[in-house]
Amino acid sequence: MGGLPSRPLRIGILGATGAVGEEILNLLRERQWPVEDLRLLASPRSAGQQVVWGEECLTVKAVEPDSFQGLDLLLASAGGSVSKEWAPQAVASGAVVIDNSSAFRMDPSVPLVVPEVNPGAAFSHRGIIANPNCTTILLCLVLAPLEARRRIRRVVVSTYQSASGAGARAMEELRQLTRTMLEGGVPESEVLPFPLAFNLFLHNSPLQANGYCEEELKMLNETRKIMGRPDLQLSATCVRVPVLRAHSEAVNIEFEAPLSVDEARGLLGEAPGVVLIEDHAANRFPMPMDVTGQDPVAVGRIRQDLSHPQALELWLCGDQIRKGAALNAIQIAELLMRADGGEP
Amino acid sequence: MGGLPSRPLRIGILGATGAVGEEILNLLRERQWPVEDLRLLASPRSAGQQVVWGEECLTVKAVEPDSFQGLDLLLASAGGSVSKEWAPQAVASGAVVIDNSSAFRMDPSVPLVVPEVNPGAAFSHRGIIANPNCTTILLCLVLAPLEARRRIRRVVVSTYQSASGAGARAMEELRQLTRTMLEGGVPESEVLPFPLAFNLFLHNSPLQANGYCEEELKMLNETRKIMGRPDLQLSATCVRVPVLRAHSEAVNIEFEAPLSVDEARGLLGEAPGVVLIEDHAANRFPMPMDVTGQDPVAVGRIRQDLSHPQALELWLCGDQIRKGAALNAIQIAELLMRADGGEP
Repeated sequence: MGGLPSRPLRIGILGATGAVGEEILNLLRERQWPVEDLRLLASPRSAGQQVVWGEECLTVKAVEPDSFQGLDLLLASAGGSVSKEWAPQAVASGAVVIDNSSAFRMDPSVPLVVPEVNPGAAFSHRGIIANPNCTTILLCLVLAPLEARRRIRRVVVSTYQSASGAGARAMEELRQLTRTMLEGGVPESEVLPFPLAFNLFLHNSPLQANGYCEEELKMLNETRKIMGRPDLQLSATCVRVPVLRAHSEAVNIEFEAPLSVDEARGLLGEAPGVVLIEDHAANRFPMPMDVTGQDPVAVGRIRQDLSHPQALELWLCGDQIRKGAALNAIQIAELLMRADGGEP
Repeated sequence: MGGLPSRPLRIGILGATGAVGEEILNLLRERQWPVEDLRLLASPRSAGQQVVWGEECLTVKAVEPDSFQGLDLLLASAGGSVSKEWAPQAVASGAVVIDNSSAFRMDPSVPLVVPEVNPGAAFSHRGIIANPNCTTILLCLVLAPLEARRRIRRVVVSTYQSASGAGARAMEELRQLTRTMLEGGVPESEVLPFPLAFNLFLHNSPLQANGYCEEELKMLNETRKIMGRPDLQLSATCVRVPVLRAHSEAVNIEFEAPLSVDEARGLLGEAPGVVLIEDHAANRFPMPMDVTGQDPVAVGRIRQDLSHPQALELWLCGDQIRKGAALNAIQIAELLMRADGGEP
């Protein structure tokens, strides 16, 4: 299978009421996609909600077997189990599915795509294309241009992940519990496992026998798949921090041979989807507040690792909802549109 | 020079109105130190403030040349330039100075002490003993028991540092700007270089030519000195996060030969000043809220690094004001008291 037709599209958004679904709608408008039909789909729980779309008001409908009739494209961001149930049905109806859940990411027959990194992979899809984990997308955008110059051996990464990664309700809970604490109250969390207000904790995805959580293993396995480097060594520590919607990462990259800071800075300065924020005189580097609502990943404080002659240290921030999820999915679809059914 | 007399002490606290000074006062009461005289000293700006001490109310006095007459001990936490000016005068007056600033830490004639790690070093002092950097103290507490079993080659550490490391005013600014953001306002910082509310940023200590900031190089140089390992390789990324008073660290430790997770857990479980918080079933590991106001450093999520056969990953949290500053200084003094002037 290949691209999307060049005529205005018939699009479904599954999970239209979530943080990522909302941002997908924003992006469709911002990027002036030609849309013939827009169906907002969600679980029965969210059905009936109204969503503004330009001058129209659209009603979110409960997803059901005939929801996909005639769709060209389904953008799914309603969680793994929802995708597992509905994505194959959408494909059977003739739609291409770009799925933001982890359900199909490691399926060898499903491409896992960051458009700036492995755009060609998108065209090998058999109906479903997986959108990677948010921290992984941000990391790969920065690793890929460096890898193109100097082969990477090992990555050690620590994340600073915002509440948005756990959804809109987690963001609201962070605001609420922060208010509680400022008023001298005792915060009690319901959405996240622990109060995030003025606190932080290791990512609470299920732990594996090796002591890593799923989020950390996603970073390992998805990075290997996206970069086509099954032998890449990577160890991650994923941490949830009291930030609303941008993720940050401290990244230590060991190469097979030295790569100078100047060379790395030059490569990243020209890399698609990446901006440098490196003002040494002002001691000013990327922060979540810089990238909130922005498209590119910001990178800075690139420095020679004092502890290893072949390693560099760097720091990155990116909007989790945007490039970490909605924007990347939109960009995958745009790849398929540009190709208009052909190979890239 | 050696210990402190075993009679009730004449103690000066320089920087008595700061976050660390206040905690030193709390600890003196909690630990029921025998105190004969307590002089609260500060810059002229803070002089005149009243501080409650048990049933007394003490007035903070401006530090001046005769402030140290007859003192046995000066606990200084008023910043580097203040310590540089006054610590030598206190020593000349016959006091032992335990200095919380970075002024003397790397002076080869000044011991840099974490009592659980290198207690013996304290007794080589010539009047001044330096209290290490907060993140370094927490890290060394965890590295030392592992190093005692298996020699460490390299450490890669990312920190999650609370506002308290920048002082009481930074903590208050975090609260204030968080309120501003919750009310929809635009936060503007005065104490910290950028708004920390729902944001984070690389540590703003002065940058060196190599791209590391001073805080990161303190972690390297002080860890080497405390552990007596001038050849230890260490690279740090120091980050300020919107947490009030506990620091966290993601630590990757490469050993010269493998050390099993079980062995590391056993060593840390018995290490002084360290508690394990490792509940895999509940996916529950150390958080800032666990250690706020607590003495020990909490460690957990100890795991075999998937990317290196001789490395372990772990996570730690510790109260920055307490073990990261005030408590460590108090414990150094207690070492000298127990020794009563003799060698350990």
